Amino acid sequence: MRMYDIITKKKHGEELCEAEIREMIAAYTKGEIPDYQMSALMMAIYFNGMTDKETAILTDAMASSGETVNLSEFGELAVDKHSTGGVGDKTTLIVAPIAASLGCKVAKMSGRGLGHTGGTVDKLESFPGYNTSLSREDFFAQVRSTGIAVIGQSENLAPADKKLYALRDVTATVDSIPLITSSVMSKKLASGAGTIVLDVKYGSGSFMKTAAEAETLAQKMVDIGTACKRRVAALITNMDTPLGHNIGNILEVKEAIDTLRGNGPADLTEVCLSLASAIAHLALGISFAEARARAEESIRCGAAFGKFVEWIAAQGGDSSLTLNPSRFPVSKYSYEVCADKDGYITHMDAEKIGLASVELGAGRATKDAVIDHTAGIILSKKTGDAVRTGEVIATLYTNDESAVQRAKLELLSGIEYGDVAPAEDRLIHKIIGAT
Amino acid sequence: MRMYDIITKKKHGEELCEAEIREMIAAYTKGEIPDYQMSALMMAIYFNGMTDKETAILTDAMASSGETVNLSEFGELAVDKHSTGGVGDKTTLIVAPIAASLGCKVAKMSGRGLGHTGGTVDKLESFPGYNTSLSREDFFAQVRSTGIAVIGQSENLAPADKKLYALRDVTATVDSIPLITSSVMSKKLASGAGTIVLDVKYGSGSFMKTAAEAETLAQKMVDIGTACKRRVAALITNMDTPLGHNIGNILEVKEAIDTLRGNGPADLTEVCLSLASAIAHLALGISFAEARARAEESIRCGAAFGKFVEWIAAQGGDSSLTLNPSRFPVSKYSYEVCADKDGYITHMDAEKIGLASVELGAGRATKDAVIDHTAGIILSKKTGDAVRTGEVIATLYTNDESAVQRAKLELLSGIEYGDVAPAEDRLIHKIIGAT
Repeated sequence: MRMYDIITKKKHGEELCEAEIREMIAAYTKGEIPDYQMSALMMAIYFNGMTDKETAILTDAMASSGETVNLSEFGELAVDKHSTGGVGDKTTLIVAPIAASLGCKVAKMSGRGLGHTGGTVDKLESFPGYNTSLSREDFFAQVRSTGIAVIGQSENLAPADKKLYALRDVTATVDSIPLITSSVMSKKLASGAGTIVLDVKYGSGSFMKTAAEAETLAQKMVDIGTACKRRVAALITNMDTPLGHNIGNILEVKEAIDTLRGNGPADLTEVCLSLASAIAHLALGISFAEARARAEESIRCGAAFGKFVEWIAAQGGDSSLTLNPSRFPVSKYSYEVCADKDGYITHMDAEKIGLASVELGAGRATKDAVIDHTAGIILSKKTGDAVRTGEVIATLYTNDESAVQRAKLELLSGIEYGDVAPAEDRLIHKIIGAT
Repeated sequence: MRMYDIITKKKHGEELCEAEIREMIAAYTKGEIPDYQMSALMMAIYFNGMTDKETAILTDAMASSGETVNLSEFGELAVDKHSTGGVGDKTTLIVAPIAASLGCKVAKMSGRGLGHTGGTVDKLESFPGYNTSLSREDFFAQVRSTGIAVIGQSENLAPADKKLYALRDVTATVDSIPLITSSVMSKKLASGAGTIVLDVKYGSGSFMKTAAEAETLAQKMVDIGTACKRRVAALITNMDTPLGHNIGNILEVKEAIDTLRGNGPADLTEVCLSLASAIAHLALGISFAEARARAEESIRCGAAFGKFVEWIAAQGGDSSLTLNPSRFPVSKYSYEVCADKDGYITHMDAEKIGLASVELGAGRATKDAVIDHTAGIILSKKTGDAVRTGEVIATLYTNDESAVQRAKLELLSGIEYGDVAPAEDRLIHKIIGAT
């Protein structure tokens, strides 16, 4: 295997064979292939794509490039959920306890936020004491006893993907469907769950700009997971507008608690119920309609919220905050942003709103930045809402007063007004792999 | 300027602006842009190309990235010649003395061979004592007195191109017309000649596989040189079959001497006369027909050969060898390769024949390999010739007996037989920029 020949083949649109892909990933993980050759190949893949067979082999090669988690003792009950990244996306905090309350075992490794999107691990650290790095033994024990454990991603999980993703991130080769597919699915396969539900987002806040692109990506991921004998479904959801009203770690935890108590915003509640239903449908082998009814009942009767409290406590977090969210610390400064005209909000660019929240301290512009858990944005108005001049559309929260103006400008650059209400976008475009 | 944004623009097929290209080349030369970003950009350029304006700016930015040679004292008389690389291509050894005998000033920096193609500097070192690294003063003095000096390329001539070419060579991004154009022309512009004639080859032994591709490349190079106020012409020549009969350093020098004495093979003589005519036409401001007549006369009357002897002597080489080529050392082993069937040779793959000569020691598989000046191949038969079983088609020369079998197999894999003579290929497809 010569890397030069592999690049040439792909440049000419030919299919790479299994041995070429496996040897290449093994050699790259060991540092035996220079980044400058790998980035040239990634760009050739951006232009010429990969066949389904190539993508499946690449995914498996990356999944087995490091340690893997063996959740076979839980069978299909071991569930995992993945979102392709969104703004204000606190669904894991809500879906995990619903699924666990129905008997699923949520054994999940989550990432941290980077750029305009947040990360579940950062959100969970809003609870003082929450331990994101359980030992392998404690992780398994908690899954058995409580039905949920969510920890940070192991450094050695799919290390080939970690290295490749870092390279793609600086060489403008992220937005390739086979590369996204293999990146996401290699981590999911290595994490060991028997049931996997994906939330594939499209719109201004995500990599896939259209529902059609998101659907293509989702279908590829479902196909690969299914070929690897996992039960997989994917929801195609709209991320043109942030999910729910709150963006920022503590603010999102509060909104998740509201939702688990049955008082959440309609869009967030709907996406969470759909995700939980897809999970229960696949893991428990019940109909989607039955799963949906049980998920709704779990929120109504308080079982989901109870499971949330139990989870946070089991993992060392201060669970008294779940019962009294008003005791969470609040930021020193808050600033209201008002509408400067009458009309309707016709578009809210989720990416720009996410970047505004990063300015306020809620996220990381670089990997080593420190997060302010109290910082963020609460949107009082969203796409489709009527507004009048002077009416509050959002409130900014921060401990860094100097960031307010920059964040306000970034936020406003993402909001468009019009004289007529926009056509309502479908929140959930489609569900693949679950009926 | 962020390299990430430049890659993204080119990936989406947009035109880069002048500041982006110039800052990028300056930063890359200084080592401020990592190779993995540059190779991703090169691959994006392979797929999306560059406009003429982008190519011109890139060429100029690379030409001015290091030292430049000021040949303005010679005006248009200062001539340079470039070949895009071929097998058995000893034209510089013949064209330079013809041009100098007609009054041109050949001030040339040449490369060494790598891979299946040879290099003029290696061929000249067949003469013991030949100095390929004259000081700047001695180089100018010899051009003034003798009309020719050919030295190795300065390390600091177009260093941006040197670095970029080395990267393209290992990332499969060499075969891009704007990148080849800017690479060749940046070195030619930095070398300072007022008149430049290019030999753009197509066929199995070169980067451009068809005459049409070669013509596109040639036209771009002529346009860029002309825009930079040089007199430029290009010959499009066939390199499906090696030029002349001899491949390998001393063997090629002997064939060059034969040609300068009027006894060269027809194809080699024709290409050399055409190149010399184009040079004299542009440099002396005479008609192409007049230039051709003078070039033929220069060989006939011995002026070209006399200039060759004078040149080798002036540059420290043992010029007695030019008068007694039989005194050149010969290889320890020679091996005849015979036809194994009756018929016609319908195709000779120049690249494979070049690689066979590298096996024998005539070239370099890697940059640091040592050359055996006596090694090489003499072809007794070429494309279109009739052969009978057992008739000698080539003789291999080497000091490494163990290489003979490998070289023979490589050579034979490049020769095709048929029952009918193939249609004759035009040797010189077209001349651009000279009439």
